[in-house]
Amino acid sequence: MRIGILTIGDELLIGQVLNTNAMSIAKHCTNVGAQVVCQSTVADVPEHIVSELHRVASKVDVIITTGGLGPTHDDCTVESVASFVSKDLVQDAQWLQVLQQRFERLGRELTPRNAAQAMVPAGAIVWHDSPGTAPGFMLPASSHAHSVDVIVLPGVPREMQQLMDLHVLPWIQRCIEESGEPITSYRTLITTGIPESTLADLIGSPDEFLQGGSLAFLPSQRGVRLRIGVSSSLAADREQRLDTIEQIIRSRAGKWIVGSSDVGLAEIIGRTLNDKHHTLAVAESCTGGMLGGACTDVAGSSEWFLGGVISYSNDVKMSMLGVAKSTLEQYGAVSEDVARQMAEGVRTAIGSTWGIGVTGVAGPGGGSAEKPVGTVWIAVAGPHGTVSRLHTFTTDRANNRERSVAAALFMLWEQLHDQDR
Amino acid sequence: MRIGILTIGDELLIGQVLNTNAMSIAKHCTNVGAQVVCQSTVADVPEHIVSELHRVASKVDVIITTGGLGPTHDDCTVESVASFVSKDLVQDAQWLQVLQQRFERLGRELTPRNAAQAMVPAGAIVWHDSPGTAPGFMLPASSHAHSVDVIVLPGVPREMQQLMDLHVLPWIQRCIEESGEPITSYRTLITTGIPESTLADLIGSPDEFLQGGSLAFLPSQRGVRLRIGVSSSLAADREQRLDTIEQIIRSRAGKWIVGSSDVGLAEIIGRTLNDKHHTLAVAESCTGGMLGGACTDVAGSSEWFLGGVISYSNDVKMSMLGVAKSTLEQYGAVSEDVARQMAEGVRTAIGSTWGIGVTGVAGPGGGSAEKPVGTVWIAVAGPHGTVSRLHTFTTDRANNRERSVAAALFMLWEQLHDQDR
Repeated sequence: MRIGILTIGDELLIGQVLNTNAMSIAKHCTNVGAQVVCQSTVADVPEHIVSELHRVASKVDVIITTGGLGPTHDDCTVESVASFVSKDLVQDAQWLQVLQQRFERLGRELTPRNAAQAMVPAGAIVWHDSPGTAPGFMLPASSHAHSVDVIVLPGVPREMQQLMDLHVLPWIQRCIEESGEPITSYRTLITTGIPESTLADLIGSPDEFLQGGSLAFLPSQRGVRLRIGVSSSLAADREQRLDTIEQIIRSRAGKWIVGSSDVGLAEIIGRTLNDKHHTLAVAESCTGGMLGGACTDVAGSSEWFLGGVISYSNDVKMSMLGVAKSTLEQYGAVSEDVARQMAEGVRTAIGSTWGIGVTGVAGPGGGSAEKPVGTVWIAVAGPHGTVSRLHTFTTDRANNRERSVAAALFMLWEQLHDQDR
Repeated sequence: MRIGILTIGDELLIGQVLNTNAMSIAKHCTNVGAQVVCQSTVADVPEHIVSELHRVASKVDVIITTGGLGPTHDDCTVESVASFVSKDLVQDAQWLQVLQQRFERLGRELTPRNAAQAMVPAGAIVWHDSPGTAPGFMLPASSHAHSVDVIVLPGVPREMQQLMDLHVLPWIQRCIEESGEPITSYRTLITTGIPESTLADLIGSPDEFLQGGSLAFLPSQRGVRLRIGVSSSLAADREQRLDTIEQIIRSRAGKWIVGSSDVGLAEIIGRTLNDKHHTLAVAESCTGGMLGGACTDVAGSSEWFLGGVISYSNDVKMSMLGVAKSTLEQYGAVSEDVARQMAEGVRTAIGSTWGIGVTGVAGPGGGSAEKPVGTVWIAVAGPHGTVSRLHTFTTDRANNRERSVAAALFMLWEQLHDQDR
């Protein structure tokens, strides 16, 4: 099943909003075995939406749109979709009733503006459990002249996701199962510490062992991920072929592979800590809580993450982490000694197996000739002592903070790994 | 100047990677006065890329592509662009030399794989200060048969951004200035605490006062943003018209507007705290550092953000924040009393003007009939006492954490604002 995603909204084209909907829809459709062949964004302009619906319809079996369903003058997706399928707008009486009841419960009056959100193209299957004031709906190919199913979802991510989970994904899965068509499954191997081209040379020509499967290299600041894809209508066949290809890649580049599923380094570390019955605490300066945030993103992290101190000011470094005033005065807050005292201090204060300390100049201000923006010291304190390392990142604040988190997790991973050798 | 953005990569279509490049390019092009009219994503398949280049070329003056420039077998953007402009690939001797020198400095040998990255379409203007191993380049409309300038950038966000800043944006700005065409400027008003449709009714028909400008409603979990847009070739004229429209909207819905630029609530709060010479400290349980992360996202936050405690475990709540053992035993960690003691505890421990405490059940585990997943208590302690509030969010961990951060910032904003009344 080929899917086209059409995200609608001026806010996307002027770069005011990150298009998380496109990623989320693509990911979930791929997971149930559909193939997303194109994604595009158009403005809240009826002619643009209609013309894009025509174009995408010629390439795919299903179009999923998000956005432009709101109650204000700039929303025009429903009219545009009606025009594409050559249907009139009709009032969905049941949705109007849902809206009336919801507004009554909130003690608010249903305004004409919201009541107008009950207008949908004739022939639409309306989802009356839609969580917002705009209903999601579907125009099956059988209801109009184009050979494409059109699914229309709200742009609010939570509302979109709920309708995907309740209606869209189960429907896609059912269609694919009934068709008996091959499904593509993916597996991702996470490497770190090796450049993309060296990794490619190590692995050699993939055509030799892929046997019709695919292999993609995805470089990022956190390392290169290898994504393997294979197609088959049988789940067991897909698993077996993924296993075979993974084994060959591991035999050639295994020492650089830190994990074999598409999870973040924090989750991989969490599993290792859990296995060892170890715990972690963090002391953060330039990352200001992001490292703790990354650890606690992982569900169940309370098993191994105890907490931390955001020591943004020097006073907090001294009072809560026991960093020596003399060290701060002699070496400055961004220094190897302070990073080590932070890591050791938080480990002692919280009583964890491991402690991480991060201190750096995130920018844009605070840099000097000796310690320019992007200078970050990270220390990891553990049962066998403390290691520390100087990192030199970029001039961009957000980038420096994100890379500091990645580097801190990687240093901890190395320490956990070193113990096994 | 009309711009089309073409992001290339299987990883985007299967939803493995968030398309931050599309947003970043759109934002920066819009800021210098260009108009992004479409954005689309295609797979690493030469026919798809070439066909999409043809389609977009018919709609815009400039195409910007990112992605597919890497050294591995799955990267095929350069060949596809060459095919689109009907040019051969030629070796850029200067870029080869740059690569050789860089690899030498790193003590690594230049592999044939990386050397191949010096091949570009004939007629390309190559940017020899590109930060990665793939050079960015431009094919001016004058160099080929299509009436469109094609700009080819790497997909690694940092590399893309650097070339945008160094070459692409200055070039766009120069072209626009020379053309004397009207430029669209935007201004965003941030509202909170009022539903989208009520806000629209308050503001009334925008056509009455927009005078050719535009007004968009952007709802999110953090409130509705209002984006005003006006076009003119004169900067002073744009500013004056934005001022006039803003004034009219403020006269109708001013009490719901918390800020008048497109900055987050954390930045707005930071400015208020700075003005008052107040400081902030946070105590986080379910958000695990994200609230501190949101505060320290703001450049210069060290002026008002002192630090915090990530009290993920109960031991840390007691030892570092002075939460009473009896309170934890009687009411549980997710309770009003614990949130209040966390807020007051961190305020006292760090010596800040304000303290925030957040404790909740983020999920997916840890819920109960009495305190289901999504139950979050937030307290704000300040010079005039402590306020606390129960929030009931969703069943989704990431959503609950993000909304907890937003709600905590909003509660602080309310307290800072109340004092003025």
